[in-house]
Amino acid sequence: MSLDPARLAPMANAIRALSMDAVQAANSGHPGMPMGMADVATVLWSQFLKFDPAAPDWADRDRFVLSAGHGSMLIYSLLHLSGYAQPTMEDIRNFRQLGSPCAGHPENFLLPGVECTTGPLGQGLAMAVGMAMAERHLNALFGDDLVDHRTWVIAGDGCLMEGINHEAIGLAGHLKLGRLNVLWDDNNITIDGETDLSTSEDIKARYAATGWHVAECDGHDFADIARALEEAAADDRPSLVACKTVIGKGAPNKQGTSATHGAALGEDEVAAARETLGWDAEPFVIPEDILADWRSTGERGRDAHGAWESRVDGSEHKDEFQRRMAGELPHGDASKDYIASLVENPAKVATRKASEMALAEINSRLPDTIGGSADLTGSNNTKAGGIEAMTADDYSGRYVYYGIREFGMAAAMNGMALHGGVIPYGGTFLVFTDYARGAIRLSALQEARVIYVMTHDSIGLGEDGPTHQPVEHLASLRAMPNLLVMRPADAVETAECWEIALRNATRPSILALSRQGLPQMRLEAVDGNLSEKGGYRIKAAETERRVVIVASGSELHVAAECAAKLEEQGIGAEVVSMVSTELFEEQDESYQADLLPADVFKVSIEAGSTFGWDRYVGSDGLKIGLDRFGASAPAGDLFEKFGFTADAIVPQILNKIKA
Amino acid sequence: MSLDPARLAPMANAIRALSMDAVQAANSGHPGMPMGMADVATVLWSQFLKFDPAAPDWADRDRFVLSAGHGSMLIYSLLHLSGYAQPTMEDIRNFRQLGSPCAGHPENFLLPGVECTTGPLGQGLAMAVGMAMAERHLNALFGDDLVDHRTWVIAGDGCLMEGINHEAIGLAGHLKLGRLNVLWDDNNITIDGETDLSTSEDIKARYAATGWHVAECDGHDFADIARALEEAAADDRPSLVACKTVIGKGAPNKQGTSATHGAALGEDEVAAARETLGWDAEPFVIPEDILADWRSTGERGRDAHGAWESRVDGSEHKDEFQRRMAGELPHGDASKDYIASLVENPAKVATRKASEMALAEINSRLPDTIGGSADLTGSNNTKAGGIEAMTADDYSGRYVYYGIREFGMAAAMNGMALHGGVIPYGGTFLVFTDYARGAIRLSALQEARVIYVMTHDSIGLGEDGPTHQPVEHLASLRAMPNLLVMRPADAVETAECWEIALRNATRPSILALSRQGLPQMRLEAVDGNLSEKGGYRIKAAETERRVVIVASGSELHVAAECAAKLEEQGIGAEVVSMVSTELFEEQDESYQADLLPADVFKVSIEAGSTFGWDRYVGSDGLKIGLDRFGASAPAGDLFEKFGFTADAIVPQILNKIKA
Repeated sequence: MSLDPARLAPMANAIRALSMDAVQAANSGHPGMPMGMADVATVLWSQFLKFDPAAPDWADRDRFVLSAGHGSMLIYSLLHLSGYAQPTMEDIRNFRQLGSPCAGHPENFLLPGVECTTGPLGQGLAMAVGMAMAERHLNALFGDDLVDHRTWVIAGDGCLMEGINHEAIGLAGHLKLGRLNVLWDDNNITIDGETDLSTSEDIKARYAATGWHVAECDGHDFADIARALEEAAADDRPSLVACKTVIGKGAPNKQGTSATHGAALGEDEVAAARETLGWDAEPFVIPEDILADWRSTGERGRDAHGAWESRVDGSEHKDEFQRRMAGELPHGDASKDYIASLVENPAKVATRKASEMALAEINSRLPDTIGGSADLTGSNNTKAGGIEAMTADDYSGRYVYYGIREFGMAAAMNGMALHGGVIPYGGTFLVFTDYARGAIRLSALQEARVIYVMTHDSIGLGEDGPTHQPVEHLASLRAMPNLLVMRPADAVETAECWEIALRNATRPSILALSRQGLPQMRLEAVDGNLSEKGGYRIKAAETERRVVIVASGSELHVAAECAAKLEEQGIGAEVVSMVSTELFEEQDESYQADLLPADVFKVSIEAGSTFGWDRYVGSDGLKIGLDRFGASAPAGDLFEKFGFTADAIVPQILNKIKA
Repeated sequence: MSLDPARLAPMANAIRALSMDAVQAANSGHPGMPMGMADVATVLWSQFLKFDPAAPDWADRDRFVLSAGHGSMLIYSLLHLSGYAQPTMEDIRNFRQLGSPCAGHPENFLLPGVECTTGPLGQGLAMAVGMAMAERHLNALFGDDLVDHRTWVIAGDGCLMEGINHEAIGLAGHLKLGRLNVLWDDNNITIDGETDLSTSEDIKARYAATGWHVAECDGHDFADIARALEEAAADDRPSLVACKTVIGKGAPNKQGTSATHGAALGEDEVAAARETLGWDAEPFVIPEDILADWRSTGERGRDAHGAWESRVDGSEHKDEFQRRMAGELPHGDASKDYIASLVENPAKVATRKASEMALAEINSRLPDTIGGSADLTGSNNTKAGGIEAMTADDYSGRYVYYGIREFGMAAAMNGMALHGGVIPYGGTFLVFTDYARGAIRLSALQEARVIYVMTHDSIGLGEDGPTHQPVEHLASLRAMPNLLVMRPADAVETAECWEIALRNATRPSILALSRQGLPQMRLEAVDGNLSEKGGYRIKAAETERRVVIVASGSELHVAAECAAKLEEQGIGAEVVSMVSTELFEEQDESYQADLLPADVFKVSIEAGSTFGWDRYVGSDGLKIGLDRFGASAPAGDLFEKFGFTADAIVPQILNKIKA
């Protein structure tokens, strides 16, 4: 299609009409952004974006990310108009209503064509960085024939003002992700009013300082937009295109103001906009010629898709490429031998070290992994199995030096996982999940297989003190839906947890790992993965069981020591390793009741907040934990000070069961 | 003191010696930064910083923030050498040991002279922005005679790479905080190695793009350092001084590498450094002449402090200024009449609106508050009581347009609260506590009176959908030590919560507020603040109590509806409003047991994660909550869908008590 305004303008107005009408019908939503960016989006989709509406999951499609997710009617309009099966016009009519895939913000799990969930500002762009990384990596492995696409982003001022933007563009600039193009809706408006209420930044200069190419255009001039996108596509650096736009363009009395940002325009203004735009059609009706022009936009992509399918069929890499893009693990159970060797040679190791040992196995056998750390490589033990750095000169590397960018790392991993073909894992200290939490939540919501290697998981990190010691973090993460939190107690459980994390294709995992060395608890060979049930009995009572001690991670051996002391006194004591409360909750009631019977006294031991442990020990039970901030001292002194020793705990148990 | 290197060099070497020796003794810590920045710090403290070691809490002192908190031996050395009562040399010998105030990272609650807790990277600088805002604000109110000081920051590459840096400097640049000077330890090294592993950014250009003045110097040339600091002090924009340094300077075999960053140098290298530095003294011994030079650095400040005391004594503002700097509230109980008027005129209002109503009262009577929002002013209802914007042209304003910078806002509020003289509050959506969580944790750890106005506190926000609907957030925040989470149910409780938040001078508060309108629950006048006990009985059973329903916030009226239906069937049902679990936990056992008796069936209702509610309803109780992500739809539809209605809940209660 040419850049003829006579054809493009009505196409853009179709977006405007759908957006304002859907928001008006819902009496809720954000018309300003879709109306402001309608012209830019029309040029992008009709001239540049490589997509095939009939195959939303085509591996080599361009990725389109609406980072300014509140403008969701823009992407719903684009998907519908260009001919995706979803959303239907009925879906759009039901914008923001229960059951419609046209949710308030775009959700990757509701609509094919929505590459990622957006709405929490800044994260869409940061995920796009991960998508662009995955693309270059797979391109380096499989070549241009199979992998050769771009990542396009539409972002607003909010996305650029959030801190994560700095981390994301720093990483993208450093890795010279030239396939990443960000179209900035430069409209000078935020919710509170004009941007100069809160910022005086020269955004273009900042991007340039971070290694980006910067272009600009009049966001309402089709030819100028096309020129700028052309320029962006041609540059080998990531590009920012500042698209000067008028928010709510077309709403004559409100455009250019924050009044169009987050509320329905009102019936009068919608009518006035119809007048201004020359849009005669009824709400939710698109004139046939305009719809036909929109439907033709998918042609380029359909052809390209066909050619690509032929290349895949002819490729020697076909099976492996398809396996990876499907997110399937290779056949075979490599972990069995490895775990057997651990059981045969018990050793005292920190679980972060055990994770490194497991990763050495995994990375050498599973080419899908891309590891990294937010500048704590040696502490998180994340570089293992001979993998080398991914750099701007060599994208085939499988280790990312993310820099001191926890949030950016987590979001990039989300983008990689959603792109497909790779399984990202990355490390920092458990306490700094606080910095990345917004992205961890999006891993969970988006059902993305991202593996968080979170070391230094308690006061056991010692001297660095309270700012670095997690206390409430296990509880706070366990409260999050669809997130697997696993805290292994030794090298065997660590290997099992890695296996579980890799196998869980639709949820993220957090591995909470110790800094300090831990004795091996698992000394017997077993069939299967004991951690898989979340909690399991690791020591049975020698006589009638009167106490069950539940513990996780670095406190499991303390629990075992307590049990031994109790048994010495003739008190039958069992120990349950609670590797993952989420997995334990998924077991049937009889399994749970067998492990944690109602009529036996129960104790929990975990060097973190006791919040949430009542559900396992009951109101009469004993919760050994830490409900205050930690302190700076060697780890042993802290465990002593805060009472995580058998000597401190056993008398409390005796007190309770004798009372 | 002159810039004579013959005197300054030994002073700087005293820092180096103390730092490497303390880290060596602890066999843990970070010698690289203190050794690298010793020369810069010596110039700053001897020539520029306004401080009086005898009066660490002098209101008009310059604030010194060691944002790169891992280099804690730098500030411990400076405080000790310049003559603060603490830390003693014994404290330094016990660096990183249990009980020493010389913790792994500097803690504001352990040492006078440590203005804020640092270690979580980026936050020190961001708190310094808040300190500089408070200074300019108080200066605008009280004049140069009483308030006229600077904020100096030492920051490393990590502080600058974190996302929060972007938010912090954007705010500082916009507000033209010329009294803020950041000395960047530009050493090209991070933990993982050289900075070019992970970044290619032109940091100076980025700061310039954000409205900062940028200077640079050779960080090992005293005259050049002084020139650059002079230049920074003279400019009316915030300044970044890039101090080119060698990490671990003085350790001949390791300097300039990441090996000096986070581990003891080793005895051989310490000995070699002594040689290189010409430092003959034993560990923890400072030669008398060098110590005398250090002790003389406090003279300028001592004189300035004396002159300032005289000015305060002569000031008409003396009492008010001292009251504010002491963090005391004015006398009188203004809230009593206001709450009485609410009880007399019950109305259905959203608690965010109720918060605005309370704020109108507070802001008009309490001049200490500085409000704001991260670009959600109209949604958070935070601008009330006629307060106007704080701008670069008028710092006397009491409302901050923080922009889309949740983390930066929270950190700035920490800085303001720690500076003293102001009580900051700021708003965003509750779900975006995820973005600010690192700073919320530092509010709690630092015992800072920061008030978080977190609106849209459940699925009750409706159409915006799961990315904007908090689910796990109440639980995750309740798990955090020393944080008051309050979720009021109506306008009366909201006013009570504001009163509690203001009165709690040593802990931060989170007010979780509804978007949707809520019926007034409190219809009777009472003496005192019922919310103060965290939970209280709002409805007694009409007959023998068989059910106790505990609920918070927007679910309290649902609980009351359930109770009414139960009473209709002759089942005595009580309702407990659980405004704050933290406050409830502080009550004595008999109070708790009276409200939540062991032998009565208990139900909890809260539109969020059930995680943590077992402790109140027991294992036999019923927890009504939401353990999945929400959905996009009108609020009423969502409460219906997820079962937060009396019709859905009462049958479950009947089922249980009849079983």
